[in-house]
Order: sequence, then structure tokens, then C-alpha cells
Amino acid sequence: MTHAVPTELLADRLRRAGEVAAAQDADVLLITPGTDLRYLLDHSGESHERLTCLVLPAAGHLAPPALVVPRLEAPGFAADVLESLGVEVITWTDGEDPYLLVSDLAGGPTTMAVADGMPARHVFGLRDAFPDIRQTLAGPIVRELRMRKDAAEIAELRAAGAAIDRVHARMCEFLKPGRTEARVGADITAAILAEGHTEAAFVIVGSGPNGASPHHDVSDRVIEAGDVVVIDIGGPLASGYNSDCTRTYAVGGEPPASVRETYAVLQEAQERSVQAVRPGVSAESVDQAARAPITEAGFGPQFVHRTGHGIGLDVHEEPYIVGGNGLTLEPGMAFSVEPGIYLDGEWGARIEDIVVVTENGAERLNNGPRDLVVL
Amino acid sequence: MTHAVPTELLADRLRRAGEVAAAQDADVLLITPGTDLRYLLDHSGESHERLTCLVLPAAGHLAPPALVVPRLEAPGFAADVLESLGVEVITWTDGEDPYLLVSDLAGGPTTMAVADGMPARHVFGLRDAFPDIRQTLAGPIVRELRMRKDAAEIAELRAAGAAIDRVHARMCEFLKPGRTEARVGADITAAILAEGHTEAAFVIVGSGPNGASPHHDVSDRVIEAGDVVVIDIGGPLASGYNSDCTRTYAVGGEPPASVRETYAVLQEAQERSVQAVRPGVSAESVDQAARAPITEAGFGPQFVHRTGHGIGLDVHEEPYIVGGNGLTLEPGMAFSVEPGIYLDGEWGARIEDIVVVTENGAERLNNGPRDLVVL
Repeated sequence: MTHAVPTELLADRLRRAGEVAAAQDADVLLITPGTDLRYLLDHSGESHERLTCLVLPAAGHLAPPALVVPRLEAPGFAADVLESLGVEVITWTDGEDPYLLVSDLAGGPTTMAVADGMPARHVFGLRDAFPDIRQTLAGPIVRELRMRKDAAEIAELRAAGAAIDRVHARMCEFLKPGRTEARVGADITAAILAEGHTEAAFVIVGSGPNGASPHHDVSDRVIEAGDVVVIDIGGPLASGYNSDCTRTYAVGGEPPASVRETYAVLQEAQERSVQAVRPGVSAESVDQAARAPITEAGFGPQFVHRTGHGIGLDVHEEPYIVGGNGLTLEPGMAFSVEPGIYLDGEWGARIEDIVVVTENGAERLNNGPRDLVVL
Repeated sequence: MTHAVPTELLADRLRRAGEVAAAQDADVLLITPGTDLRYLLDHSGESHERLTCLVLPAAGHLAPPALVVPRLEAPGFAADVLESLGVEVITWTDGEDPYLLVSDLAGGPTTMAVADGMPARHVFGLRDAFPDIRQTLAGPIVRELRMRKDAAEIAELRAAGAAIDRVHARMCEFLKPGRTEARVGADITAAILAEGHTEAAFVIVGSGPNGASPHHDVSDRVIEAGDVVVIDIGGPLASGYNSDCTRTYAVGGEPPASVRETYAVLQEAQERSVQAVRPGVSAESVDQAARAPITEAGFGPQFVHRTGHGIGLDVHEEPYIVGGNGLTLEPGMAFSVEPGIYLDGEWGARIEDIVVVTENGAERLNNGPRDLVVL
């Protein structure tokens, strides 16, 4: 692996995860491949149909942590790291029942917490191997750790933000009238990779009426002079930490005054929302700070999504900046602030920065111009 | 979408899925984003944390099928196709409870079958929205359809097989002493994409001792003259149907006689296994046909995995060619035949073809040379 998390840090994460599990009345955490596994063991594992599963007893239980893994996937995990962490490795081969192996290891739990992304096939395989088990989600446990980033994680997110800012800074090379969204998207993809991302996880080029669909990706639509274009792009660096930044562009000259006016509402909303970020306020208050000015200007129904999502090893993770989320923000939490206004059949606009909560407010990790950039 | 499945075919799949669900005592099928959704609606959906779910009542229930989808993801589905199929579209926005929407639509089922890949967060969300529900897997239902490929699907798999064969045919350009596995892998990735794949889903370059790890991918190991190298590569075409083919190469001249002898055992095993494929035999008998000669030659413990896996919209799907699987093979089933021998710390070899069961036996979809290719 090119990016190694120090073993002491992993040991600390495993210990704390066990403590939070105990505090939340789970007896054992069962973590299948994905970002939770990467967070805890510095390796995502392979999401195949064969079960790979970290068995992590809650604090107070005697059994050591163990990794149940198909024999042919075991070499993907660093044996020395697992040994330093005290994680026992149990391999299995095709034809064996891996759920029984987990059951033998876990020592009669009454409540198991499984990774939020665990596929149903494994959820039910584990359910059936444990009589009378109560299954809950591990997300509420692991997020207590993951949503509070340490300094190294914030440094990775900062690097990701700077990398995607450099891609946006090159948009004048890519985004021109007469080119299709798909062509522009291909150029952006290449630029994202050239900036050290391992993958261009999402490339939204929403031109003209396509900009009014927030999760549009790209199409064969030819971009015309006069189009407003939403560009929402990002992906993981080698560290696994993601970038995610949206800017809105006006192609082929000055847009009409009505576009300018609507965009000014959005920009004001995004600014107010970022200014609202500080320790001690609720996630929903940051959503409300973006929503209020948009609603006042009459565009409430056209802001069809939450204001933001946490970001880290996942592009979307806790904390979600959404009405109803009373979570109190703390230093080290990282999330997007990305209000949008979408006029069906006409155009759309969105402005998105990743911010980190600091003692003094929000640190923005995206710092390119937030004005409507005229190309 | 560039690749459209005819609507009549989708309608037929929905109808048959409802019939199989009823025959398997499920009241409703709940299908989240993934290949099952693509098979049924010609669109995979987006695997985000927001719930997208096809609600398909079993035959005999009165409710029409419905798609519960976040408002911002809805434009990804072709509205005219859904309308032709009689699928009602129910959108929801952030802050609403999508599981209650599903519950309102499903009309009091006692057994729900959920997609095998449905993440636990949605499995439990649905469980908690339906009092006293019994949850089972949809896989055993949907696979009754998906593992029997129609002529158009086989044509897509044939095209995928030919495409990856052309990449293997270029291996002499890529695989040379003095280059790292990673460098060779990057060239192969480019060739896979140039052959019309939308993604190089897996690129295994297992040189020397790395070849003894069946799921190795690539590393910074420099390939040396005398190395035996396992190359296992593939991915989806635009149709979504996958290629998957393994060949083993000897780099830098003639390998030692012991390698030749061991490889001959493997080649004989792969050939016998392909010859064993015909309608009416069991999946495990095909595994046994590969395993017997390898075991006779003393390499049984070094053949550490099953003989093969089904392939289609997923790289790994039913039917699995593995001991204990008594499934009777039928025309239209497609799977890999890929025995391997892995000598820890030394080298490994694997030969993999995709085959389709026909009335007369196996049609191979990979047709490059199966000898140990000396480069």
C-alpha cells in the first residue's frame, strides 16, 4: 500500500470502536469490506460475494478481534499489521460456511451491529447463524469516530480540496460552446486523474436545462453560448479521502440579468450557511441558514435537496446537514455546504465547498471563486 | 442510454419475476440499485445512502409495481419506459421517510424478498417499517431468470469474450522483463478500455510468487526473465455484460520442465472440465471434472478455489461451479471454467474461459490459445 495509516492509530480506532459499541449496547461489531473496514484496518477488502468480516467484540468482552477472510483474499491484508493489532486471521475456502466461523468466534452475543453497507446476503447469513440475535447498524457506532477527523485526516481532505480546485481552475480549457457535455466530462476526468485522484468518482456537467437535475451526470447535449452549466466533480486521492466541489459557469458571455439575480440569491445563501458553521450549533441550523434566504426570494421549492453531507473516506457520510438533524457540530467535522436552485426545463445552479469545523468557525477547503464564472 | 433493452423484454422479466416470487412464497420483491435493478428496468440506479427501490408485488397481488426514488435521482430513469411498463413513480425528498412510502405501497406483505446486495441500512429501514415482516433474499428469485440467458444476452457475452481475447492477443506488447506489474497493468487497462469496455473492472498481473495469490492485483514488483505470470482481466461493455479471461504467460523464454509439467496438468483439467459441461449435469460435477486430475497429480491442496462462477451483468453470479452445488445445468447458463494451481512463494497458473451451455455441450466464449504462452 502506498498510503499507510500508523498502526498505533489503527489500534486506537479499534479500541475506541469497541468502547462506543459497549456504550451503545452492542456486543460485537461485524464489519464487511468498505470504508469502515478501511478506517479500522487500513484496507477496504474486496466486496465480492464471499464473506470477509472483521469481528470486533465490544469493550468488556474477552475475545480478541478477528478477521474472517476467504483464503484467496487474505494476502490483500498486511499480515504484520494485523499481528501488531492483535487481530486473529481466520481463513476459509469455498464450500465452508463462513457465518458459522463468525458465530464460533463471537461467543454468544445478543446484539450484533453490522456495517451499514453490509449486503443483505451477509446480513441474513449472519442472522441465521446466530439464534435469537438482534441486528442493528454499526453506522451509529463507527460514525462517532469517523465524523470527528484527526489532523492527518483533515490534511488529506485539504489536499483533496486543493486538487479539485486546480481542476476547476482549468475549466476554461474544457468548457466551450459546441462541445458535448460528455466530451467536456472526459477532459475533466483526465484532469481529475492528473491531479492525483485514483478515480473520477463523479463528473456532473449539467448544461442548460440539464443543470436543473441535481444528479445529472453527462449527456450528448451540445453546450451552447448562453448556457449556464453546473460542474460538480470529485473523487478519492490515494489516501482514500475524497474531494467534492461544485461551481456554476456561464458559457459564451454575460448571462441575462435574471440569471445574475437568481445566482446572487444562491451565493448569499451559501455564504450565510458557511458563516453559520461553528462548534455548538446544530447541523440543521446550517441547513436553515442556507434555506432561509432562498425561501425568502421565492425559490424554496426549487432547492430540492439538503444543504450538505459529511465527507471523508466516503463522499457521503455523517454528518448530514439537513432539517431534522439536531446533531451538535464539533471541531473536526467535515462536510459540504452546497445549496442549489433548479428551474425545471430552464437551468440550475449550485455552489459547493467542503468545510471543516474549527474552534473559530468554518475552514473552507475549496477556495476557487464562487461568483458565476463567465467563460 | 446508449444500450436500450426492448421494453417488451423488460415487461416479460417483471412478469416472470413476480411469478417466481409467488412460487417461492414471497409477497413482494424489493430491489435497490445494482444489477438486479438494471436487469429489470434497464437502469442500475445510484447506490447512494438515499433509498431507491423497485417495489414489485408477487403475482396474484393487485398493486402495480412502483419505483420509490429520491426526487433528485428520478431523472436518471427513463420516464417513458417506466410508464410503458406500468411502473408508478413515487419520489421523495430529504427529510421524508422513504421506508414508510414503501410500506404504504406494499399492502401488508408477510414475506419480503430483498436484493442480495441491498445495504444493511436499507434492510433494517424496511424491516422496521413493516411490523412482523419476514425478510428473505431476492437472489434465489431473480437468479431463476438471470442465470438463463436469452439470445441477446449471450450475444453480448460473446462480444465481451471476443473483446478481452483481443486484449490477451496484445500481451506481447505489454508484458516484458524489466517492467513493473503496475506498468503492465496500466497498459492492459488502456487496452481494455480501447476495446469498448466502460471499465477495467479487474486487472490481475501476478508475476512469479505473486501468481500464487489468486486475487493479487498488481504491485511494484519488477517482472524478471523466467517469471510465470498470471493475467486475469475483464470488465463490462456498454451493455453491462462482462468479460473475464485468464491466461498464464512465461516471460523471457522457455520455462523449466517442472513448470511445463505442472501446467500440462492444469491444462488437462481445464479441458476436461469444459468437456464435462452439458445440459443435465450438475454444477458440482463440472467442478469435480477439473479437480480430479489436479488432485491425482498431487496438487489438490494447491487448487484453493472453486472451478468457476456465473457471469452476466455481474462478474460473479449464479451458477457457481463448486462442490456441493447440485444445480442442474441448462442451455443458456454462462459461467467461467478456471482451475488454478498455486505454489506458495514460487509461482501460480490459471486458465479461464467463459462458456455457455448449449444443447450440444459448452460453447467457449474465449478462444485464445490456452497453452503456456512464451513471450
